[in-house]
Amino acid sequence: MRAATIRDGEVVVAEHPDPQPGAGEVLVRVRAAGLNGADILQRAGGYPAPPGSPPDIPGLELAGEVQALGPGAQRFRPGDRVMAITGGGGQAELVVVHERQLMPVPAGLDWPEAGGVPEVFTTAHDALFTQGGLAAGERLLVHGAAGGVGTAAVQLAASAGAHVTATVRNADLRDGVRALGAHDVIGPDGFEERGPFDVVLELVGAPNLPGDLKALATGGRIVVIGVGAGFKAELNLLALMGKRGRVSASTLRARPLEEKAMTARAMERHVLPLFDRGALSVPVAATFALDDVAAAYERFTAGGKLGKVVVTA
Amino acid sequence: MRAATIRDGEVVVAEHPDPQPGAGEVLVRVRAAGLNGADILQRAGGYPAPPGSPPDIPGLELAGEVQALGPGAQRFRPGDRVMAITGGGGQAELVVVHERQLMPVPAGLDWPEAGGVPEVFTTAHDALFTQGGLAAGERLLVHGAAGGVGTAAVQLAASAGAHVTATVRNADLRDGVRALGAHDVIGPDGFEERGPFDVVLELVGAPNLPGDLKALATGGRIVVIGVGAGFKAELNLLALMGKRGRVSASTLRARPLEEKAMTARAMERHVLPLFDRGALSVPVAATFALDDVAAAYERFTAGGKLGKVVVTA
Repeated sequence: MRAATIRDGEVVVAEHPDPQPGAGEVLVRVRAAGLNGADILQRAGGYPAPPGSPPDIPGLELAGEVQALGPGAQRFRPGDRVMAITGGGGQAELVVVHERQLMPVPAGLDWPEAGGVPEVFTTAHDALFTQGGLAAGERLLVHGAAGGVGTAAVQLAASAGAHVTATVRNADLRDGVRALGAHDVIGPDGFEERGPFDVVLELVGAPNLPGDLKALATGGRIVVIGVGAGFKAELNLLALMGKRGRVSASTLRARPLEEKAMTARAMERHVLPLFDRGALSVPVAATFALDDVAAAYERFTAGGKLGKVVVTA
Repeated sequence: MRAATIRDGEVVVAEHPDPQPGAGEVLVRVRAAGLNGADILQRAGGYPAPPGSPPDIPGLELAGEVQALGPGAQRFRPGDRVMAITGGGGQAELVVVHERQLMPVPAGLDWPEAGGVPEVFTTAHDALFTQGGLAAGERLLVHGAAGGVGTAAVQLAASAGAHVTATVRNADLRDGVRALGAHDVIGPDGFEERGPFDVVLELVGAPNLPGDLKALATGGRIVVIGVGAGFKAELNLLALMGKRGRVSASTLRARPLEEKAMTARAMERHVLPLFDRGALSVPVAATFALDDVAAAYERFTAGGKLGKVVVTA
């Protein structure tokens, strides 16, 4: 098969042996695979693939058709439209995924949209609801809301009855974020005065943390899943005690099979029904053929886009 | 009635009008009331009593006999032995407490022991289990384990099947902490190498936080409820993401009635049965009559003690 391949800090297309599905695994013919920040870190050499994933093929999410079943796999049939997060290897013509990580593709989504769903919606749902405990009536602040996870978070939170305040650095993208359901879309400055917020989804990094804490409601939760702007934060513990607050942080990529499978079940139960009902959309900023994967990475890192960059195979 | 009274940074004994129980409240004849760190802060003028509490009478916990019932109060009868946390006013001959905050005194406890139970056991239980989610088989690190909350936490965690590592600065107190059930008692240095810990109970403050994070297990929880050594902490968000960890912080004193009442129900359900079974003890370092309350505060701040300082009335 052909696959995006990391060679000396560049992403090229190269031939690899076809992967073979083991017990409980499914061979998927990939049709679309979204790019994520972790791919960029991996390309630079600073974020090796987790054990069990191809070391040199990036891609944390994919959508495609079931091509073959490994021994004991029974949740899907050949030809089924499926999607999943994976530890790596998604940006290829073929990938092997454990059937417990696979989800069905909602009927209304085309391939580029489906290829951009798993990582960002799973990440956003896990951060907002599983970690952050966001509930109807609460107030949410999303930093960096125009990106992939941000656009998913805005939609999920608004759909669940939360009031959503979103910070977006690029003024050209604010109307797009508003259209996704955010109630208040602002620049990156002055958010401290817009609280109190019950949940803060931090996709930007350490420089925001003092302001996040200042704007936190009593009993509030700060969930950090992106630190592109820096990771060394100041935390005033006395202020956090006074707020009876908490700061949690997480990544999806490094989790073991059983935890990734739990997030897939949470998606099937709480998110996919909202796609079926038309309450969620997948903003796709740009689509590139696998042969043009290097250009896809350039587009991803250039910024100034709303939603996902997707490679089609 | 007579009560400990804060006057210009000193604690004296003064006359006050007898408090009157309102709807749902109970008038308690106080027999014993423990001292806590918040009393010291309040004495210094930096931590005013919460609204609804006497502004000048310290005391966050007490044990005594029910003397009279306000309208509608029905959980207890005059003469019943009760104990409670309260927003203030516990170090007095009489105090009014809402009946939903009151708990029965376990049969085996004398008055000084009972007066030292509510604040530290409620705080420790809330921090370890409600906030920290500590469960059997997990590994706990308690910083500052010789103090009131620390000695309660060591016992509660060991009773619940956790492995307990305790840091105790004063070498003379380490055997006492070991006798309470701690499996590994060490000085304040080098704890980073003793992990990984599923839960860290931070009773010392900000200087420990980088080490706490280094020693944290995947999915671990740091719970901060004491910052005597400093509150401005450094938090490496990338490391916290890698651990999929969380830092929460809290105080009991400022919580509203319904939340304090919930902690009293948790105590009745999960902690008082362990007293009845003889699995918990209340180390009382020193007892002072109400007339000697100033000496009690001196003893409390002098350090070098295992367990509670209690005023009897």
